[in-house]
Amino acid sequence: MINDIEIIKAESSKINAVDFDNLTFGSVFSDHMLVCDYKEGKWRAPKIMPYQPITLDPSAKIFHYGQSVFEGMKAYKDAENNVWLFRPLDNFKRLNISSKRLAIPELPEAYFMEGLKALLDLDKDWIPTNDGSSLYIRPFIFASGQGFHASPADEYKFIICTAPSGSYFAGDVKVLIEETYSRSANGGVGFAKAGGNYAGQFYPTQLAKAKGYHQVIWTDDNTHEYIEEAGAMNIFVRINDTLITAPTSDRILDGITRKSIIELAKSEGIDVQVKKLTVTEVVDAAKNGTLKEMFGAGTAAVVSPISAFGYKGEDYELPKLDSTYASFLKKRITDIQTNKTEDPFGWRFKVD
Amino acid sequence: MINDIEIIKAESSKINAVDFDNLTFGSVFSDHMLVCDYKEGKWRAPKIMPYQPITLDPSAKIFHYGQSVFEGMKAYKDAENNVWLFRPLDNFKRLNISSKRLAIPELPEAYFMEGLKALLDLDKDWIPTNDGSSLYIRPFIFASGQGFHASPADEYKFIICTAPSGSYFAGDVKVLIEETYSRSANGGVGFAKAGGNYAGQFYPTQLAKAKGYHQVIWTDDNTHEYIEEAGAMNIFVRINDTLITAPTSDRILDGITRKSIIELAKSEGIDVQVKKLTVTEVVDAAKNGTLKEMFGAGTAAVVSPISAFGYKGEDYELPKLDSTYASFLKKRITDIQTNKTEDPFGWRFKVD
Repeated sequence: MINDIEIIKAESSKINAVDFDNLTFGSVFSDHMLVCDYKEGKWRAPKIMPYQPITLDPSAKIFHYGQSVFEGMKAYKDAENNVWLFRPLDNFKRLNISSKRLAIPELPEAYFMEGLKALLDLDKDWIPTNDGSSLYIRPFIFASGQGFHASPADEYKFIICTAPSGSYFAGDVKVLIEETYSRSANGGVGFAKAGGNYAGQFYPTQLAKAKGYHQVIWTDDNTHEYIEEAGAMNIFVRINDTLITAPTSDRILDGITRKSIIELAKSEGIDVQVKKLTVTEVVDAAKNGTLKEMFGAGTAAVVSPISAFGYKGEDYELPKLDSTYASFLKKRITDIQTNKTEDPFGWRFKVD
Repeated sequence: MINDIEIIKAESSKINAVDFDNLTFGSVFSDHMLVCDYKEGKWRAPKIMPYQPITLDPSAKIFHYGQSVFEGMKAYKDAENNVWLFRPLDNFKRLNISSKRLAIPELPEAYFMEGLKALLDLDKDWIPTNDGSSLYIRPFIFASGQGFHASPADEYKFIICTAPSGSYFAGDVKVLIEETYSRSANGGVGFAKAGGNYAGQFYPTQLAKAKGYHQVIWTDDNTHEYIEEAGAMNIFVRINDTLITAPTSDRILDGITRKSIIELAKSEGIDVQVKKLTVTEVVDAAKNGTLKEMFGAGTAAVVSPISAFGYKGEDYELPKLDSTYASFLKKRITDIQTNKTEDPFGWRFKVD
């Protein structure tokens, strides 16, 4: 426990200006933010302050060398106004795993967890209660230290902002299996939630969008034969009644929704295989009718059904099933997240 | 030509506080900076203003998705106080090549070139004249648009800052040929000067430093058998009297110093081979005595001789020759850059 979180409250709240019935994703921000500075070799105690602009020297290393990591989480409110998080310690641990790879100093657990709880307590009115909405939480760290020398910064900022948000994707998603561009290298930073991993995906995704797709499914950079992930989501494929997803690696993010889906599906008696998945296998299954479902899994979208995929100039439609693993698992996981059902896994985390 | 560069001059200069005889690299900044905003689908006319902090919303995409590119250039002053740049149009073109891959809108040439000339004209007293010193120029673009959605920003800032600088490396460099980590993927962003490419190198470089090396030589992520580049420098190897460097690719930066060295060496009758270079070839040459030199080439360090390399736990010392390609080519290129000799290549660019 830390008892020294300084809190400077906003003079007035912006909450009345927000239309909670028509929220987009991550574009409206709550009244407060948590800020924690790393200086002279040490993370300083977190402060909560009104949501406000950040001022940086033009030579701050974030602008030049992409030294940044982030996390994505959601807070939910149940019918009794209790506030819930989902596996928050896993986000904390992953943030430090990402930081280590990006040469960013690791953050103390109490600064993350106690800071987050204090922030949510202060801004709990910002947690939406509409179905499908949540308070999206964005913890991030970036290099604020200065200098035009390509080396790790000596100063960093850890910030948590929150944003009441609706759905990440509207409707089903049509994806393109990538044959030219790549997201990550063996021995690279693909497993980390590093800022640079995202910027590199924008241009290939723009090209895919121009062809009518919403997202890219990334394949390995060497052969483009193995399905990896979708950049903001891990990918699951159902062939007959077996649910398959790729193993994590140094190229693939260890998604918290991904691992929850695996555990949940197994506990429901679904045959789950974590194995390398080839594009050929998926295309063959689409052709012979054994490909039943594909979906993405990630914090922002939770479970996002894929309606079709494109590969080598051909489109493959997924069948429209009455009952899907995707909708079943999405309901199970969101019911646990929102305290509508028992949580046999101990994933739900009450914010007191 | 653009005639609408607004100039707001600093009220007083900081130049008297600078010790020009003891400059480090990129840590002291000149009085002014150039700023150009991209808003509502269009780059706005550049402004020159006093060097000052940048204020951004916490949701600015640079903090989260690493959407940034940069360039590195140098300005020199000759004995007659003329100001010279080296191949600046190549930096401009590469900036736009990087931007395209990072889904950043391309910048008009006049905003870059005229903006840079106006900035250098205003801050020309900041250009050091000591041997080995120069005014380091850092043009960069980053995503200032807001939102926690992993997609390209709708607003950007293009900024040029300058920093009177001494040498980038002091003395010879001992490098480690990397066998585990990687800098870039096939189909990735390695050829671009994207921020994220640099942050990903910091941790492996820290590990190498802990073993007594200064820099990492990156190899391909698939086999770690091909020598690629050193992150802030391209790599040249001299075996007998042949100078070898790897071809550029989507993983390797198209270095301006690299291509100048190739052209210069060829014009001096040196046998230059641009070909895939294996680690085995370099190790074998070190063992049989045919490896004469290794050096890095880049804007910051110009030419940086390598004194030894490590590979699979063994260190290989380079011979100490009386006359080297590295020192010969470095003198030739810096003499051209600083207007001490003829420039048959048309590389030097006078700032009027």
